[in-house]
Amino acid sequence: MHRDAAIEGAPTRKATCRAGSNIAFIKYWGVADPALNIPLNNSISMTLAGAHTTTTVAWDDSSSGAADSVTLDGVELQGASAARIVAHLDRLRAQAGVPWSARVVSNNNFPMASGIASSASGFAALTVAGTAALGLTLDAARLSALARRASGSASRSLFGGFVEWERGSSHSSSTARQIHDESHWPLMDLIAIVSTGAKHTSSSDGHRLAATSPFTAARTQHVDEWLATVRRAVAASDLALLGPVLELDALAMHGVMMTSAPSLLYWQPGTLEVLHALRAWREEEGLPVYFTIDAGPNVHLICEAETAPAVERRLASLPAVERIIASGPGPGAQLLGEHLF
Amino acid sequence: MHRDAAIEGAPTRKATCRAGSNIAFIKYWGVADPALNIPLNNSISMTLAGAHTTTTVAWDDSSSGAADSVTLDGVELQGASAARIVAHLDRLRAQAGVPWSARVVSNNNFPMASGIASSASGFAALTVAGTAALGLTLDAARLSALARRASGSASRSLFGGFVEWERGSSHSSSTARQIHDESHWPLMDLIAIVSTGAKHTSSSDGHRLAATSPFTAARTQHVDEWLATVRRAVAASDLALLGPVLELDALAMHGVMMTSAPSLLYWQPGTLEVLHALRAWREEEGLPVYFTIDAGPNVHLICEAETAPAVERRLASLPAVERIIASGPGPGAQLLGEHLF
Repeated sequence: MHRDAAIEGAPTRKATCRAGSNIAFIKYWGVADPALNIPLNNSISMTLAGAHTTTTVAWDDSSSGAADSVTLDGVELQGASAARIVAHLDRLRAQAGVPWSARVVSNNNFPMASGIASSASGFAALTVAGTAALGLTLDAARLSALARRASGSASRSLFGGFVEWERGSSHSSSTARQIHDESHWPLMDLIAIVSTGAKHTSSSDGHRLAATSPFTAARTQHVDEWLATVRRAVAASDLALLGPVLELDALAMHGVMMTSAPSLLYWQPGTLEVLHALRAWREEEGLPVYFTIDAGPNVHLICEAETAPAVERRLASLPAVERIIASGPGPGAQLLGEHLF
Repeated sequence: MHRDAAIEGAPTRKATCRAGSNIAFIKYWGVADPALNIPLNNSISMTLAGAHTTTTVAWDDSSSGAADSVTLDGVELQGASAARIVAHLDRLRAQAGVPWSARVVSNNNFPMASGIASSASGFAALTVAGTAALGLTLDAARLSALARRASGSASRSLFGGFVEWERGSSHSSSTARQIHDESHWPLMDLIAIVSTGAKHTSSSDGHRLAATSPFTAARTQHVDEWLATVRRAVAASDLALLGPVLELDALAMHGVMMTSAPSLLYWQPGTLEVLHALRAWREEEGLPVYFTIDAGPNVHLICEAETAPAVERRLASLPAVERIIASGPGPGAQLLGEHLF
């Protein structure tokens, strides 16, 4: 193909990045500015070592206005399903002032659209690989702001370890930064996958609906206090302090989702099976494990590394749990020497 | 037994009442005054023909300070489990100015502590039978206020059809009244029983926890608008108007419960199985059916009588549904000529 030939002739226009997904301890839900993805509140997350996206972007510098090609987990995306990625490629083209088309190949090592933030790791990797292949040198804050335009939580996946996304009030001020690196606290996220079905409503649509919930203002009002607790808990590696607020904010976000118009009910029967089991392990056996849930049915069980085998063994015995992905804190987005094509 | 002998000698000291449970369209959750059971907001309910409690109270006018005897669904209650009923008998004794002990026998025609308000029908029946057996003549508002002291929702179960409980600001002003009688609208409540296990936290304890939720103030603030919609919808027999607000307030109440400290999670896996199925029936098949959920795992499916067979057939095919109780609007609490003992 013409495009491949052009790329082969210009190897510097190609780059590959791996970025981890992240699990938010205080959630991003609801936007103050939908066009810019400026959120209603700060959020804090842990970048995951065990759930990541690897993306290669190659720009064809002999092209102008040609269609991009996007392959995700081996499937070439067409039309609407590629539109969000093409829109982000447009931002990268605008940044570099070039009309080049791109070929993008991206692979996740975890199931898509199931409450694991594939858009976080995917758009972080796309931003870093795409700008690197264009020869742009942007600092971390500018990369974070750029990734945020495509997916809010992607702004956090650029960084390793424990990360806070400052809400900010403008494109350049709404960016994430690392608060502790990945060696700070050997926390584990055991993701109990109870359903791999696609979501009824995507997170991006859901964020816009947050404004319709009677609970959004109340969550926004309380979240600063919860953020302060999470910062203190992470700094002190104090799970007993982190856990209750982790659960409270997840339940508050789902309370907002359920009471939106239309109502968003991401939970499935298996979600509740895991929640009730977890509470019993904690209350009856004293197992120090807490949960959070993203915009999907799967449950993220948060515990310290030493407790993880006991939690994983119990989780595996639950009928609703199809698969468990275990992950500690991972590194930030990194360019790789090898490419996907 | 001495007590039975005394009762047999004084037949006028014995009365039996049957009262229906009720399903709230706008929920009672949270108390402004815990001692008096004055609620945070007005509530509106439908009294159920198909789920009721029958209670016989006999006072022993030869006794003074002797222990009461309470038999519920064939089991004689001891100690703490009888305490709430004995406390209400104390209120009735105080009302009449007598020291007599009582024998109470009460039967529900539905499972206890499973999200069907057995305390509503039970305390309504106890109040009416107990005061009648004492020869007290109280008007409906005073009976409602008296029943409210034992169980908030019992204040509504005194009345048939569609009922609103005015929040009020004092013992005598916090009472329920009928807004439409049971012939007004042939609405059906199909109660999908997904778990007959006892609740982890009773409603009475839960009401006190509402104050700890970040969402309670927001729900209280929005509920007046929802009440107005429900009044209009019931007056016009308009299910399409009633349904969305019915679901919203149920989800809002569970959002409050989940974010209380400690968090109350009344839902079970089967709850979500029914909710997702119901949404699919409505969205994909156009079936006009809506849900509400009390402080328990069971789902109340609200539809018009003509739709009920189609809903019931679908419900019966769901693996999680153990049993269905179908009920239209029922009459208010009524004294019966026959007694349980």
